[in-house]
Amino acid sequence: MKTIPSPSRKRLVTLSQILSQIKDQKKITSVEISEKTGWSEATIRRDISLLELHSGKSNGYYIEELRNSIQEKLNLSSEITKHKCCIVGLGKLGESLLSNSNFEKSNFDLVAGFDSNTNRIEIMNSKIPLFSTINLKNTIESKKIHFAILCVADEKAQEVAEKLVSFGIKGIVNYTNTILSLPQEIKVENVSPIFVLGLLC
Amino acid sequence: MKTIPSPSRKRLVTLSQILSQIKDQKKITSVEISEKTGWSEATIRRDISLLELHSGKSNGYYIEELRNSIQEKLNLSSEITKHKCCIVGLGKLGESLLSNSNFEKSNFDLVAGFDSNTNRIEIMNSKIPLFSTINLKNTIESKKIHFAILCVADEKAQEVAEKLVSFGIKGIVNYTNTILSLPQEIKVENVSPIFVLGLLC
Repeated sequence: MKTIPSPSRKRLVTLSQILSQIKDQKKITSVEISEKTGWSEATIRRDISLLELHSGKSNGYYIEELRNSIQEKLNLSSEITKHKCCIVGLGKLGESLLSNSNFEKSNFDLVAGFDSNTNRIEIMNSKIPLFSTINLKNTIESKKIHFAILCVADEKAQEVAEKLVSFGIKGIVNYTNTILSLPQEIKVENVSPIFVLGLLC
Repeated sequence: MKTIPSPSRKRLVTLSQILSQIKDQKKITSVEISEKTGWSEATIRRDISLLELHSGKSNGYYIEELRNSIQEKLNLSSEITKHKCCIVGLGKLGESLLSNSNFEKSNFDLVAGFDSNTNRIEIMNSKIPLFSTINLKNTIESKKIHFAILCVADEKAQEVAEKLVSFGIKGIVNYTNTILSLPQEIKVENVSPIFVLGLLC
């Protein structure tokens, strides 16, 4: 299989989400994708060629086949199990992400929330099981959680991230303002407003 | 000037934030940057070469010079004015970003928050001026705001984003789960947990 470069991967993840929002058509052309995304048709065709689809594209791509192929090639889903993830730090930000209902429709399963404040956990209203950070190790290991959404205070971020990695976390969505220093094999995406605004300039 | 490709840009923005967190040294080597980030030394040297620094690098890079150069080449800062941005949608998520104290240390100036619920705005405690969305157009135009952090409900995201663009917004940090369909020249970064988790797999 061809390796998929990072910008193509990002566009294909976006495309997968766009395709999942389409309800009323079976096929889509690169012209239509271009209208929805602003990417050039050549870019779209090149990205999709990386998926090595078997069927032709003379009249556009079959939406379901295209989406399934993206999910499969990018390892976004598995038929048997969803990817398990957790939220660490349940301040206002973590709490708001906890109630983000779209997890149900995604390839990710939000299976735990953690906070160091045990009183806060007891009074919080959540469908997701909540735990004290004392139970981080046990819970991550027993539930086989591989992804964490990090929402702790900036000054705690590095310390908590190191613990998460030592307990088996392979990838972190970092909502804090701290740039994490972690082993090369751990994937981190920085998504604090300040950081992301820097990408827009 | 050489154009800076998107993955290099992302690494340089990260590097700029790392450099701003260093207090106790004047120079930094590519080996030290590699230890902090996990990027290879060759990648680091290639990214930094895009900045066309004038001074040598035999004993490492001067931290202040390197950071200033990144800020300048990536258009992250201007001596005269910071980039103005606003938060649109002040639910739990928007409210938590509103109190994100790091804006003060950044090259961005958070100058307004907007919500459609006027009662909510009245009772909210914020140092940032808050407005009803009725005043979106006036406020964005008069304050010359070019960047928006979008935190509205998923089903409102496309409609609100289109309005923001028509009022002069050039870049959007999109915390909603909706993939936005906007003119090609508008920059959008998608940072909802579901989307970003897809980049980590």
